Amino acid sequence: MNSEIEKLASYLAKLPGLGPRSGRRAVLYLLKHKSQYMEPLIKSLQEVAESFVVCEICRNYDTISPCNICSDTSRQQKTLCIVEDVADLWAMERSNVFKGQYHVLGGTLSVIDGKGPEELGILKLIARVLEQKIEEVIIATNATIDGQTTSHYIIEKLKPIDVKVSQLAFGIPVGGELDYLDEGTLHMALKSRQAVGS
Amino acid sequence: MNSEIEKLASYLAKLPGLGPRSGRRAVLYLLKHKSQYMEPLIKSLQEVAESFVVCEICRNYDTISPCNICSDTSRQQKTLCIVEDVADLWAMERSNVFKGQYHVLGGTLSVIDGKGPEELGILKLIARVLEQKIEEVIIATNATIDGQTTSHYIIEKLKPIDVKVSQLAFGIPVGGELDYLDEGTLHMALKSRQAVGS
Repeated sequence: MNSEIEKLASYLAKLPGLGPRSGRRAVLYLLKHKSQYMEPLIKSLQEVAESFVVCEICRNYDTISPCNICSDTSRQQKTLCIVEDVADLWAMERSNVFKGQYHVLGGTLSVIDGKGPEELGILKLIARVLEQKIEEVIIATNATIDGQTTSHYIIEKLKPIDVKVSQLAFGIPVGGELDYLDEGTLHMALKSRQAVGS
Repeated sequence: MNSEIEKLASYLAKLPGLGPRSGRRAVLYLLKHKSQYMEPLIKSLQEVAESFVVCEICRNYDTISPCNICSDTSRQQKTLCIVEDVADLWAMERSNVFKGQYHVLGGTLSVIDGKGPEELGILKLIARVLEQKIEEVIIATNATIDGQTTSHYIIEKLKPIDVKVSQLAFGIPVGGELDYLDEGTLHMALKSRQAVGS
């Protein structure tokens, strides 16, 4: 393999979900579809690389700051959802059910990764809750140990403030079969069981 | 998601091995590693897009034509290996066992894809065998029905010419367990069994 093509293959192999073999397959796909695919891809990459910024308010990725979500006045201004990552914000937006504001932590509290409240912008978050007179904070960190540790920390920090704090519900995922679920999920689903009107 | 970022995600999702979800993950990876990864990747893509050519002799991908393999005078000039795709040529080169010339068909004979002997450069291949006084043609098409149909066609076309024609051996893959092999492979492995010196 030519050294430049090999270099490109090794770059592509680093993308999440790809490896050495799929990196080579990706290169061949690019070379075989140069004008229809490779060139538009390069153009799109350049545009995004040049224009993307991190939103100064919520830390979402966009081409403007404040981002499209933060500057959308039609959204609820008094509800704030806390997510770990931009990917989680995108997932929430795809579900199309939440119409408030966001705060992206950019990770979880972690001694190993050296991530403290400073890195997650928790002080800024508290200040924002006070300044914008937020009425409800919805914590939507992942249901992992790290996510829940971070959630508890934020809940503690919000305690002195007069704000409603809630957390995403734990339970059976829609379409899930009890037989395949872990005991932790079943435990939480049973604990959080909902009364059914008779 | 911002529309430009979304466009990039949908482009990346088209890469072989990626889909909508991994396309989004790839975009986030790019944005999070802009200077260490995204910018070098763009540069590498541009370099390859600008410089790559299809070798006029063997149809390999390279930045020069004739390619590095065709212009390497230290390689055997009288042995020619026929492969379906550039990926197969790369696989042969990785195995590091073949040191001759190549011809890349660019597919197999296929009525559905409209690929005839013309598209696979088989006439040019025959001319090359005569011109370069090739002594052995090794057919290394895939062990699929299409690959073997193409192989038979080439064998027929080479019959009038005074050249040794061989084909890659069928048999048990190294590390393979008999219990997991299909009957076709076992059949071929038994038919092609090798005498063991006593």
